[in-house]
Amino acid sequence: MARAIEEMRVRGAPAIAIAAAYGVALAALEASRNADAETVDKAASKTGVLRRIEEAVRRLRQTRPTAVNLFQALRRIEMVVAMSRDLTPAALAGRLAAEADRMAAEDVAVNRRIGTFGAAVFRQPVRVLTHCNTGSLATVEYGTALGVIRSLHHQGKLRHVWVDETRPFLQGARLTAYELLADGIPFTLITDSMAAHFMRAGQVDAVVVGADRIAANGDTANKIGTYGLAVLCHHHRIPFYVAAPSTTFDLSIPSGASIPIEERASGEVTHVLGLPVAPAGVCAAHPAFDVTPAELITGIVTEFGVVEPNAERIRATLAAGGRQEGGDGA
Amino acid sequence: MARAIEEMRVRGAPAIAIAAAYGVALAALEASRNADAETVDKAASKTGVLRRIEEAVRRLRQTRPTAVNLFQALRRIEMVVAMSRDLTPAALAGRLAAEADRMAAEDVAVNRRIGTFGAAVFRQPVRVLTHCNTGSLATVEYGTALGVIRSLHHQGKLRHVWVDETRPFLQGARLTAYELLADGIPFTLITDSMAAHFMRAGQVDAVVVGADRIAANGDTANKIGTYGLAVLCHHHRIPFYVAAPSTTFDLSIPSGASIPIEERASGEVTHVLGLPVAPAGVCAAHPAFDVTPAELITGIVTEFGVVEPNAERIRATLAAGGRQEGGDGA
Repeated sequence: MARAIEEMRVRGAPAIAIAAAYGVALAALEASRNADAETVDKAASKTGVLRRIEEAVRRLRQTRPTAVNLFQALRRIEMVVAMSRDLTPAALAGRLAAEADRMAAEDVAVNRRIGTFGAAVFRQPVRVLTHCNTGSLATVEYGTALGVIRSLHHQGKLRHVWVDETRPFLQGARLTAYELLADGIPFTLITDSMAAHFMRAGQVDAVVVGADRIAANGDTANKIGTYGLAVLCHHHRIPFYVAAPSTTFDLSIPSGASIPIEERASGEVTHVLGLPVAPAGVCAAHPAFDVTPAELITGIVTEFGVVEPNAERIRATLAAGGRQEGGDGA
Repeated sequence: MARAIEEMRVRGAPAIAIAAAYGVALAALEASRNADAETVDKAASKTGVLRRIEEAVRRLRQTRPTAVNLFQALRRIEMVVAMSRDLTPAALAGRLAAEADRMAAEDVAVNRRIGTFGAAVFRQPVRVLTHCNTGSLATVEYGTALGVIRSLHHQGKLRHVWVDETRPFLQGARLTAYELLADGIPFTLITDSMAAHFMRAGQVDAVVVGADRIAANGDTANKIGTYGLAVLCHHHRIPFYVAAPSTTFDLSIPSGASIPIEERASGEVTHVLGLPVAPAGVCAAHPAFDVTPAELITGIVTEFGVVEPNAERIRATLAAGGRQEGGDGA
């Protein structure tokens, strides 16, 4: 699972988080079966299973540094482990799998709410530009920014989607285009370099993107290319929305300056799907994310509503949302 | 030659212009040889050669609509034909080949002067970002924007080059990277979507790009993605220069709104070097150029010096340059 995340076979902040939770559950299941098979000393075998779980958490934590949902999910799994120390290895594995299932179900519900809140922002049918992939292939189902686009479509408020191909990994061309084709949502694929041209031509009414980590002040790390889009929106007076679950916020980080930006392999830029597009020996940079300062963001669409991107509003919204969730669960 | 231009085997506004001039010379040479072989009626064979030249000019004019240098070059060739009506077919063909040679030599000289004027703009060593390919592979030799970069390098005033890969055709990754590698000029290849990130990080001191057509007011058509860079420069207070020979100006066009923008095949976006990067059935837009309004351009580097991008300064510079050239030739 760790390799799948590193190699971006599973990608998208919410999908990575859930995949990691299942990864720990798988490690626990495997370890508990071995423990059952070799049982001599029950206490020793329990210790072995717990050690294996710790190792899995540590390994998964090292896969990708930028998206915070991964760390939030692993912390939640660790809490479940801590509260389940008296269970047998098999029961513990089952408990972790159930927790991962619960997180997956929550992700779908959260995305539906993000979609509803995001679509409510727009009164008239709009042409939306999006970057990267934030749909069913980046979450458990429905999506964040693509969830907003899906909701707009269902409500008859979507005129068109502009899909940035999203170099270097081409998530837009490969994944978002696939999802929109499958759903019959009208869209046009463009290279990232065309967005400004269509904005100037008055053909883009809004930009909606996802997020990998949002600092306490609203600064947002997301797929490389997002920041440039935000600047272009500012210049063209086009609203720029971030759509992300509350687990994307990292209140321990005051601003975007402290968000670690993953630097991926140069070969992912010099090659496209394994095919070289630059001469041998060329050095390429590959920051996988960039940071958009809060002042360029019109609003952040969460499962608790659309938040103005400033520290006070963010803290208040997350606190109120957390209380409400606690209430729902009680 | 027309097919080579259409299929972008020859590309870059200055290279296209010279190639087209040679294309007409080739047509004249071929027609004059046929005329020599079949000569019965000298007048009739001369008419046939002239008709063939006209056809060649017409065909070449239809290859690509945006870059104006092509049309300027063909007009110049037509004037030579008009002034050479009393020559034999063979002598006419020779005259056209000699004119194409002269244009090629002029292109090199012009590029050297653009390089010198462009480099003189900068006092301190700079990190320059460029888009597309404007070097020896886009001109006869040396280049326009890349000529400025070469001159900076020769003068020890170049710290680094950021090379936009320039989707969809990847002229940056394939051609500019090749030229810079060959010259030993230090550079880093980036995807177009990374430019904003490195600007925000304070790692770009200037952007220098080429041009395909400059309207009377300074609005500039250039490779798709250029306009977005200009907006990003404006936002980050980074100087944005256009480097182009005076033949790139089209004073018959008041503003960029009247520049025809070539729409190329969707398949050049959905495929990279022939490899599909999007699901079958995806519709992609492919405007090959965009227009940067004059107010976002710091200066236009021509062979007559650096021009402030406004109608008055442009007209005065071109008039003065033209007079000086006339004087040089006298």
